[in-house]
Amino acid sequence: MEALFKSYSENNEAVLRAIAHMPTQSLPVLIGQDFVQGLTDADYMRIAVYLAQKSDEEGGCPIGAVIVDNTTGQIVGKGHNTLIQEDHPYNHGETSAIRDAGRIDFSQTTLFTSLSPCDVCATLLYMRGFSRVVVGDVTNAGGNEALLREKGIQVDILEDKLGIEQYAKFRAEKPDQDLEDWQGLSAVKNQCG
Amino acid sequence: MEALFKSYSENNEAVLRAIAHMPTQSLPVLIGQDFVQGLTDADYMRIAVYLAQKSDEEGGCPIGAVIVDNTTGQIVGKGHNTLIQEDHPYNHGETSAIRDAGRIDFSQTTLFTSLSPCDVCATLLYMRGFSRVVVGDVTNAGGNEALLREKGIQVDILEDKLGIEQYAKFRAEKPDQDLEDWQGLSAVKNQCG
Repeated sequence: MEALFKSYSENNEAVLRAIAHMPTQSLPVLIGQDFVQGLTDADYMRIAVYLAQKSDEEGGCPIGAVIVDNTTGQIVGKGHNTLIQEDHPYNHGETSAIRDAGRIDFSQTTLFTSLSPCDVCATLLYMRGFSRVVVGDVTNAGGNEALLREKGIQVDILEDKLGIEQYAKFRAEKPDQDLEDWQGLSAVKNQCG
Repeated sequence: MEALFKSYSENNEAVLRAIAHMPTQSLPVLIGQDFVQGLTDADYMRIAVYLAQKSDEEGGCPIGAVIVDNTTGQIVGKGHNTLIQEDHPYNHGETSAIRDAGRIDFSQTTLFTSLSPCDVCATLLYMRGFSRVVVGDVTNAGGNEALLREKGIQVDILEDKLGIEQYAKFRAEKPDQDLEDWQGLSAVKNQCG
């Protein structure tokens, strides 16, 4: 059986979006190794942005993340924020992708996140020993890149215009949901008090 | 209909263990308000320790946590580590209980944890604005109590002998599982290398 997507070409936007929606465990069947080897950092980041878009379409917070095996280029974990979808008080893009990956050696992987990590996720990234983190948006958030570098992680900034616009729109339209996602419901109540 | 457990007495060990196993959402039906109002901090901590025991019996890491509403004394969230049970790379007692509670205002609650929190959980506790954290074991781990106090959280130490013995036994018997739970699989591989 041939894989659904075989060879990489420059115009793969629909495929990248499809990958965001596919079960991680099935990707090795659906996506051929030739296709995977053509994927660039910008492509992985775009998949994270399409995961964020999926969450946005579900009424959630538009933040996604993808974890890639440094050797094979295969996606071994991915996910998006589920504050709304799972009534989940801290499941961000990074925590979601790490949970999806399960108990693997993260020191052999790179995490692509559509938005600069919060304090909790930044702490989790160095406590699980990631070798590299790529950040797709330091315009709407930022600051923990310095902490990650201090802990020995290679951090690259690779901004994705689609992701930045998507997050800015969300924040403008749902400021309370955005605040709750960063600092919890108590912060939302305090600003109203 | 009367609650299953109505009035509090000093000898409730079997009931505290049962509470650890009951679904949180059903507790208001099963446990009468009179019973709840008799519960002491040591009782809540013992429930966290019985959650840790449940995890241990499942082959997992023996760490549990309970979240209590400061006004009513009701348990609004509880859980235990699921590294093994869910193949979950970071679900500790605290993250498990917070997920169980869902999107509530944690500034009106106290979290009881059977073991001193790791860096990730400590960060999550202050980012979600808990008013108080009670720690049941600073013998086997510790250090983040200072960080929590610095962030304005009231921290009380209330050591539970059963919990301390249980964790020490686990660490002696399964040192690799213990290390993975704190620092990830890469730390386990590095020590073997």
